[in-house]
Formats: sequence, C-alpha cells, structure tokens
Amino acid sequence: MASIDIATRELENPVDLAEYIFRRLHEVGIRYAADGYARVNGMGALITTFGVGELSALNAVAGAYSEFVPIVHIVGQPTTQSQKDGMLLHHTLGNGDFNVFTKMSAGISCYVAQLNDPHYAATFVDSAIRECWIRSRPVYVTLPTDMIYAKVDGDRLKKPIDLSLPDNDPEKEDYVVDVVLKYLQAAKNPVILVDACAIRHRALTEVHDLVEASGLPTFVTPMGKGAVNESHKNFGGVYAGNGSNAGVREVVESSDLILSIGAIKSDFNTAGFTYRIGQLNTIDFHSNYVRVRYSEYPDINMKGVLRKVVQKMGKLNVTAAPRITNKLPESEQSSSDQTITHAWLWPVVGQWLKENDVVITETGTANFGIWDTRFPANVTAISQVLWGSIGYSMGSCQGAALAAKEQNNRRTILFIGDGSIQLTVQELSTILRNKLSPIVFVICNEGYTIERYIHGWDARYNDIQPWDFASIPKVFGADDGYKGYRIKTRDELNKLFTEQDFCTSNRLRLVELYMPRDDAPSALKLTAEAAAARNK
Amino acid sequence: MASIDIATRELENPVDLAEYIFRRLHEVGIRYAADGYARVNGMGALITTFGVGELSALNAVAGAYSEFVPIVHIVGQPTTQSQKDGMLLHHTLGNGDFNVFTKMSAGISCYVAQLNDPHYAATFVDSAIRECWIRSRPVYVTLPTDMIYAKVDGDRLKKPIDLSLPDNDPEKEDYVVDVVLKYLQAAKNPVILVDACAIRHRALTEVHDLVEASGLPTFVTPMGKGAVNESHKNFGGVYAGNGSNAGVREVVESSDLILSIGAIKSDFNTAGFTYRIGQLNTIDFHSNYVRVRYSEYPDINMKGVLRKVVQKMGKLNVTAAPRITNKLPESEQSSSDQTITHAWLWPVVGQWLKENDVVITETGTANFGIWDTRFPANVTAISQVLWGSIGYSMGSCQGAALAAKEQNNRRTILFIGDGSIQLTVQELSTILRNKLSPIVFVICNEGYTIERYIHGWDARYNDIQPWDFASIPKVFGADDGYKGYRIKTRDELNKLFTEQDFCTSNRLRLVELYMPRDDAPSALKLTAEAAAARNK
Repeated sequence: MASIDIATRELENPVDLAEYIFRRLHEVGIRYAADGYARVNGMGALITTFGVGELSALNAVAGAYSEFVPIVHIVGQPTTQSQKDGMLLHHTLGNGDFNVFTKMSAGISCYVAQLNDPHYAATFVDSAIRECWIRSRPVYVTLPTDMIYAKVDGDRLKKPIDLSLPDNDPEKEDYVVDVVLKYLQAAKNPVILVDACAIRHRALTEVHDLVEASGLPTFVTPMGKGAVNESHKNFGGVYAGNGSNAGVREVVESSDLILSIGAIKSDFNTAGFTYRIGQLNTIDFHSNYVRVRYSEYPDINMKGVLRKVVQKMGKLNVTAAPRITNKLPESEQSSSDQTITHAWLWPVVGQWLKENDVVITETGTANFGIWDTRFPANVTAISQVLWGSIGYSMGSCQGAALAAKEQNNRRTILFIGDGSIQLTVQELSTILRNKLSPIVFVICNEGYTIERYIHGWDARYNDIQPWDFASIPKVFGADDGYKGYRIKTRDELNKLFTEQDFCTSNRLRLVELYMPRDDAPSALKLTAEAAAARNK
Repeated sequence: MASIDIATRELENPVDLAEYIFRRLHEVGIRYAADGYARVNGMGALITTFGVGELSALNAVAGAYSEFVPIVHIVGQPTTQSQKDGMLLHHTLGNGDFNVFTKMSAGISCYVAQLNDPHYAATFVDSAIRECWIRSRPVYVTLPTDMIYAKVDGDRLKKPIDLSLPDNDPEKEDYVVDVVLKYLQAAKNPVILVDACAIRHRALTEVHDLVEASGLPTFVTPMGKGAVNESHKNFGGVYAGNGSNAGVREVVESSDLILSIGAIKSDFNTAGFTYRIGQLNTIDFHSNYVRVRYSEYPDINMKGVLRKVVQKMGKLNVTAAPRITNKLPESEQSSSDQTITHAWLWPVVGQWLKENDVVITETGTANFGIWDTRFPANVTAISQVLWGSIGYSMGSCQGAALAAKEQNNRRTILFIGDGSIQLTVQELSTILRNKLSPIVFVICNEGYTIERYIHGWDARYNDIQPWDFASIPKVFGADDGYKGYRIKTRDELNKLFTEQDFCTSNRLRLVELYMPRDDAPSALKLTAEAAAARNK
C-alpha cells in the first residue's frame, strides 16, 4: 500500500504537495497512470491543479469510478482567502465561483473532502482514503495553497487508517450462507463464474479458496480475466455468452447453478448481452449484497459469505471443466500463411507470457483478442471494458509499469491499436523519463477496426494518419540503446519471442505488429454487430 | 458564419452526424480546435461521444466558457430507449444514470438542449445556436443515435436563425449616452482601453469607429491584443499595470477618463493586479451593462451605446499617444550577442509579421512576450490568458489554421514552449492529415520557465524530457518535403525571416527556437512574483 503511506506522509510533510501543485498540471499521462498503478498496486493518487488540470482528468476519474478503481484525486487550489474574495484568477471561469469544478467531480467521486480548515483537515483526509479503499472508487480532495503549511495533529499518524471492511451481521451472514449451501449442495452441475468486482473488491483470496475447495469448473468473464489461476485444472475459459471460448457456453448455460462472483453484465463484457443464464440458476455475490435466485440480501459483503461457504461446503457434485490451452486452432496449425491474424496471435501470446506478467489491452481488437489467451499463474490483466476510453491503455501502462517495477520488476506488456495510441502517445515520453520498461505492441491495422465493425467500414474517420511508431521513442528522447521492432510475419514474431534480450530487457521495447485491416477476433465481431443493431 | 450553416445543414442531413458520432471520439485535437476555429471564424463546433468523449473535452469547453468563445458541443448518446431502460452500456458509470455527464457540462454551458423528442428538437437546436452566439459561450447539445433519423420540420430552415442582439431600450440608451458624453467631453486627457470582451462580444466595429472619430490615445490589455489596428497613429501600446509597454503606464494612469471597453481584469491580464486606475476615472462598457464611475446601468449592451457616443461625440480634448514601434531597445540594437533573448525576439517578430496573420501564443513566456510585439493591421491574436490551460495553443492552432485557410489562406503562426507542446503534440498529426500549414515556433528553453518563476526554480518537475521537436512531423507521417528548422542565433532567425519559402510555403513549418532557460519577458517576471506571493 505504498500510495497510502505517501498520502499520509504528504500531510506530514506537505511541502511536497506544494511543489507538485504548480507542476505540469494536467499532463496527459497522469490521469490514466493513477488508474493503472492502482490496478496493480491497490490504490493510486493523482494531483492536478484547479480548473484546467482537474477537468482534464475527469474522463480518467470517471473511468475509475465506473470500473471500481480506488484513486485519490488531489486538487491544488488558490488560497482560501482568494476563494473567499472571489478573485479573478487564471484557471477560473472568471465569475468568482470556486466551487463549480468540485460539483462536477462530485458525481464521479464516492467522497469529497475540501481541506479548508486545519481543524477538520486530518479527519477528512483519513476518511477520504478509507472511503476510497472500502468503496474502491475515486475520492476528491481539494488543497488550497495556504493550507499546505497548516499544522495538523501529527499524532494521528501513529495509528494507521482503519481500512478493514465492516463485519457482516453474523446472524444474517449465517442465514445467507445456509441458503447458498442449500442450493449449492443440491446442484447437479454447479459452476463458478468470476467477474470484475471479485478483483476490484479484493475477494480473490476467497475466490481462490472456493475454487480449490470445491473443485468446481471455474470460468471468468472478459472483465474477470486474471482473477483466477488460468493454468489451474478447474479453469474452463472465458464465458461471455455467444463470445465465449469454444465449448464454454455449453457448459455454463447448461449448469443448474452458477456461482456468479462480482458480475458487471455490461454490453462489452457479455458480447452484446448474449448471456443465456437464468436468474433461477444463479447466485450473485457482490460487495454489498448477495442474491440467491430472486431473493436479495442487501448490506452484506461477499467476502464473509464466501469464507463461510468454503468452510461448510461439504460434498458437491463436481463435473469436469472444459480443457483449455494455448494450442492453436487446427486451421492455424496447418496453415502456411505468414499473415498475423487474431486467430493465430492470441494463443501464441499465451504461450509466450510468463508468470507474474502484467498484461494490458486497449479496447478494440486487443481486449477482445485476449479472451483467447490462456494466462500463466499470477498474471494481472488490465483493460477498460466498461468505460472504454480510447487511449486509456497507454496511460494505464505507464502507471502499471511503475507499480510492476516496484513489485520485483514484473514485466508489463501492452497491446494497443495504431489508432488508440495516437490519443496518448506522449506516455511513451513519460515512460522514458521515468526509466520504465514495458513492452508495447502497436497493432498496425490501418485505423479503427472496432469502429469499422460498428459503423462506417470505409469511412475516412476510421482511417488514421500513418505514423512511424517504432521511431517515436527516438524523437521523444530515447537514448541510442533504444530499438524498435517491425514484425510482419508469424516467423518474425515467433523468432522475436525467443530473443532473450527482447524478453527480459530492462528498457522500453516497442513492436509494430502488422495485421490485416479487416481482421478481428470473432467475439469483437459479435459484440459490434449487437452495438450497431442497438444504435438503429 | 460557416459553422452555423454547417450546424443547420447537419439537421437537414443528419446522416453526417451519425457518421461522426462513432468516429475517433474524443480525439485530443477536436476539443481545442473548436475554440481556435471560433476565435478566427466566429463560431465553432465539436462533436464527442457520450461519457468518455465529452469528459475529455470539458477542460476545453470550460476554457471557452471562461473566455467567451462560442462553441456548440454536440454529444452523441445511446438511443433514447437504451437510456430509458438504464442499460449497462460501455461509456457509462454502470449505474444506469444517463444524465450525470449532462449535469457536469451544465455548469460550463450557457444553454443545454437534450434532443430526445422530435417535436422540440428543431426549436432546441435553433435556441442553442442563438444562445451560443448572443452570449458568446458554449452550449451543450445531446443527440441520441435514434434521433439522428428523426424527422424535423425542414421548413424552419428557410428562415435563418435570428442572431441579432436585442435592441437596447432607446430612452435608457440615450440616458446612458448623455452621461458618458458629459464626462467624456469634460475630460482633459481621456484614453481608450480595449480588452477581451470587445473582441468576444463583437464590438470591434464600434471600437474602431470610436478610435477613428475621437482621435484619442488607444491602448489594449494583453487579452485585447489584436482588437485594434496597432499600426494606427492613435495606438499607444499595451497597458497592464506594472507590466505595461514602456511609457504606457504613465499616460493611462494619469488620464482623468479611461473608456474601458470589455474589461476582464484577471491576474494575468493585469500583471498581477497592478492596475492603478481609479473607478472615479473610469467608464466601463460591457455586453450587458455600462458603469460610469460608480453608477451602474444594467441590461444595456455597449454596442448601441458606443455607436451613439460616436455620433454625438463633438469635440474632445485629445493628447498624443505614446509612439510605439517594433524598434529594438537601445541595448539590443548595440549588442553583438547572438543569444535569442525575449527582449530581442518579440520586436523582431513584430517586424516580420504581415497584415492578416493569425498569431497564437501559449500561456508562458510567449503570451507575455507578445506584449512587446506591435502587430500590423488585421492581425488576429489568440491566447488563453484567463483560463490558461497548458497545451491549449497547439490545439487551438489546428482549428485556427483551418479557419485561416478558409479566409483566403491567412498565415497562422504559433509560439509554444517545449514543455507545453508535449501535452498536445498529436495536433501536429491532425495538421498534417488535414493539410494545414501553420508555422510553429517551439521555444526550446529546457522546460517550464513560467513555473520556475512561480515556484521550484531548479525542481525536476519543471524540467522536461528532451524531444527532437523538428523531427516529430516526420514520425507523424509528414512527406519528404517537410523540413524542420533549428535556430540558435539571431543571425539565423533574421535569415530565416527573409526566406521566401519559409515565409510563404503552404506546408507545415516547425522551428526549434533556442532561448536561455532562465530568460523571460519582464511582464512575466512581475506577474509570476505576484502569483507566488499570493500563494503564500
């Protein structure tokens, strides 16, 4: 929890915040970097300046709100006196209203703390951090410049902030556990389906114990990728309705009891709402409620319930999970085609990945393609499936790479499109400046393939300006040791994946990966069709 | 008013909007480009997608609100039915709330139109455009995808939208004019001071007539740069309190009547609130009120008042304006130093500029330095002095260059810092893609000089990653004809300014302009000192 320590230390030595307040303010990188950092290291922070800086960060903060990522957004403000006087300062709307931006952020924050008074400031800071962690969503904190030197009670720092979840009411918890067990023990072919909120609300230990103890076939949704050990014998692949891995839909949809953990049934997470799971066959576990068939149990956290379910589980009816590997499909194995297609790429990536890698995919062909990649153990997967802001993954990569570096130099690997990277390309500069070492694959397929599938197949707005991606780090100040890669054939990629230096270097690597303009993972095609139909 | 035509045509042939709605959404360029376009061509529009796109644009829209720039922000939304159903779609917060983003924009828009119903849609569109124009501020328009094909009354299009200002009450107007004339005719050494709102509320014809008819010494504020013909004999230079051009402060502050037109007395526009003008010596003209000394006359527009003042002016006491030129200061003329300093640069730029140029300066050394540049006639100056969002000018340049191209190929010239351009560098790609031809000067002075003067002189956060700026257009797909420039001496710049190809080419030109890290215009130093003191 490095970032929490930093936050509290910043209040003890607030001069550091002062220094940051007037820095390059809304640097494009910062907004997304906090999100990526938080997804790897548990919690992140970003500091922006009043008005211009904070508004530039709103898209990123809203994404964190949408996808339950805990980040603390600290906004440097003019002095409390300037605000009281309604001064006509730069970065204002010129109308003396210093609250307008706070109101804008309030809708995408689970807590707002305005540090205008030394007597309450420390309490507000502690509450902000606690709310951020517990609810796993952004909080918004304002810090006027004159408050930086305000003295607050340092003794509070001797006691760590209480970040523990409130306990469930024991009688209620027992009641819910009994109901769950009644259905679970009676089920003929139950399965486990793990989704985003199991990750974001930190229930993975409970999930792992459940998988291990139950022996049940276990699936993940696209947003649940990375939640469970995909090399485990129980793991059966990705379930996403019609977009599921081969053989998965049949098993999940014929199950008479789905233990659905942390579901977010959004369009892109369900291949366009193509789930065929009845609520009568479902038990939903969430951070603040459990639902057994149609019976809802509000104000109860899944973690306690799951722990007791594991303890009291008894004997279950266990069926085998579909066998899921990174083997190439038959058609690709026998092909002599050198074209890098999605059907070929993603299993090959799965063969190349290593334990503990951090894998980031941009919304588009990459985050649909990754459904066909079987991860080694302890891979962290990052993608913005629900919020889906273009360019997110490049910024997130910067933050994730920083966090990964702090975690014993885990590898950070990004797959982004040639269109999306154009939105946030300067993150590469920040990566160089901070000596981070991700591997960045730029899928060069001549523009916005996901958008072509939704609307405007040959429209100019789905084309892009052709960039020399591999040379960009050079103009952004990479030293002579930097080497970019241009990969156009399967043999070239296979060879690259065997190169020791490429696989283990402590430098930024950027690979242009040429793929056909019109090729896309089949799950993407299905989902885009559904979106296009809904837009009519 | 090309953009208004476009807006109305889009409703007639709404398929064009549909195509745009799913394009590269919140492309960084678009947000600022609309602002720059509007400042040159009168009005602009930007189209973003729901959630992710619109939030990315909020900083730019807030800037337009702050600085009175009329832009129409059109937001493509999911279908009305999806919204009613509260569907869990991508680009949402996942909570079924489809109004949260509209609420965020409401605080920085002077009108909100939600086009959910074909019966009202056309009226709302007309009102939005009218409000945008009259109040010279952003409006926010939502367009659900299913509404794109909704039929609206095409006959309305036969009658142009009424964009005329409401007439002032004639009796009231006459009354105010008489009061103004009483003081004006009695004044011994009156002067005219023109500020931003004279430009933004389109009172420049009235201002020009006043300058011409009165013969009074005329000054501009920093935000008023470009409002009057600076080669006119009446023109006396920039007034900004202690940051004024040489000799100006004495004349303005000793005047017994300042006709202050469209003032925005913000910190950066007044060199840190260093005006020394008494309200007893001031008549303020605004878009919605006039103030004579302390007497306020609300709900009256300056345009009608100024027209009548010109008509009835009679004989005034006219003193001479300070003589203001682009001659180098004595010290610079005699210097053999080849270092490009601010004291040397800005008058030299003034000698090089041509009539009708569009000149854009980024907040920092550039927009303070330009105070020392005397413009030829009909120069449009663009800078975000009040809002001051870093990187603004690069995006604004893209929009301004488009508008300038439409105005008989006016030249567009940008001065931006090596730090600021890093925020919005991909605008260069959009400029190339759209075959625009601005001249971009990147002031290479090793980072955030304006910030150094405020706080953290040697702090790392005021340094930047060193980029090869001149080569960036190449990696962004410029063809072989592109040529970047590296200018390190006065002789080199003087020579460049004489090169025909450089001065008149129809291609993007990018010049790295090397200047000392610690050098800054004196007005910037004064203003930064004031800001630093206020932050204590």
